[in-house]
Amino acid sequence: MLEATKAKNYLFQFLSEFPSLDNHTITELVKVIPVIAPTKGTLLMKEGLIPNECYFVLKGLVRQFQFVDGVERTTEFYTESHGTISSTHYTNQTPSNFNLVCMEDCLLIAGNIELDEINIKNFPVLKEIINQMLENDLNLIKEKHSSFILSSPKDRYLQFLEKRTDLLNRVSLHHIASYLGMTPESLSRIRKRIVSSSN
Amino acid sequence: MLEATKAKNYLFQFLSEFPSLDNHTITELVKVIPVIAPTKGTLLMKEGLIPNECYFVLKGLVRQFQFVDGVERTTEFYTESHGTISSTHYTNQTPSNFNLVCMEDCLLIAGNIELDEINIKNFPVLKEIINQMLENDLNLIKEKHSSFILSSPKDRYLQFLEKRTDLLNRVSLHHIASYLGMTPESLSRIRKRIVSSSN
Repeated sequence: MLEATKAKNYLFQFLSEFPSLDNHTITELVKVIPVIAPTKGTLLMKEGLIPNECYFVLKGLVRQFQFVDGVERTTEFYTESHGTISSTHYTNQTPSNFNLVCMEDCLLIAGNIELDEINIKNFPVLKEIINQMLENDLNLIKEKHSSFILSSPKDRYLQFLEKRTDLLNRVSLHHIASYLGMTPESLSRIRKRIVSSSN
Repeated sequence: MLEATKAKNYLFQFLSEFPSLDNHTITELVKVIPVIAPTKGTLLMKEGLIPNECYFVLKGLVRQFQFVDGVERTTEFYTESHGTISSTHYTNQTPSNFNLVCMEDCLLIAGNIELDEINIKNFPVLKEIINQMLENDLNLIKEKHSSFILSSPKDRYLQFLEKRTDLLNRVSLHHIASYLGMTPESLSRIRKRIVSSSN
């Protein structure tokens, strides 16, 4: 299958999940919403630059990271089931404080402010969908943050295993440790303890 | 001033901050958006119950907490500048996993699903405003979560002092410690270290 057709199929599939969109609207939307296909290793966003696009992951894995005292620290993973990549830097057009890198070959919806405005004007139902996605994302991250505050490092890892099954066998322990706010050595100790207590 | 008039004045003030609303629309919205005035100590939401309202703080302070192994743990503070109180439990009508208590006499916008639908139908511009608020909240909490992951307990406390000036002299150290995911003893040690290093 041609890459472009494959990309449009993924977009069609994604839009079909919204009950408020009929087939005709989806077909029209697929024509105007841009999908890009960055390959593994592509740097989508660079610390210090003003983002001119926001993304939604249709397929693949994007890692968000920043440097703290010269050390690379992972702050988010985006995949098909945790897809919305946006930030205050995109919304307010200020320099990004993080980087985004594709960890796999990806298919991404790539939005930009001008095009989004035109598309929303032509398809007001898009506003509804964006609203739903924002509300969903906000609720998810609020829960994640509360549970992060409340949990011990071991519980954070157990919750990660339970809630981020989309990342199974896709990310290194090194990046997981960073994402859970611990050193790789701490994560290794926690994993050993879990294995030995389940034997 | 009568309590009801005072409440409506706060609502008018709040709505005036949105450039997309003209004075006539604001006056009409003030008539249909309910504002409640719960007193200090009021329990707004109780763990295990399905929330029938969501809130926005026009004035006052609301604390979110839950019990972990029988211990009360604070997971959020809502004030005039961090006002949106919503959750997946309200959106999906499932039992709440947290409690909400007023720490001061409050003025709150109280939304409910049916009324919100009617108001949005009559004032479509409301959708725009809700969208803006959601996006703003989402960006804020994403940043907060990233910075929480990346920071040491001491840095978390310093960031809290810098970013949550709205809470100055309004919340106890006990609740702040809990909110920062540390024991009151750890917070006390950190505060002593900051004082002694600045002398």
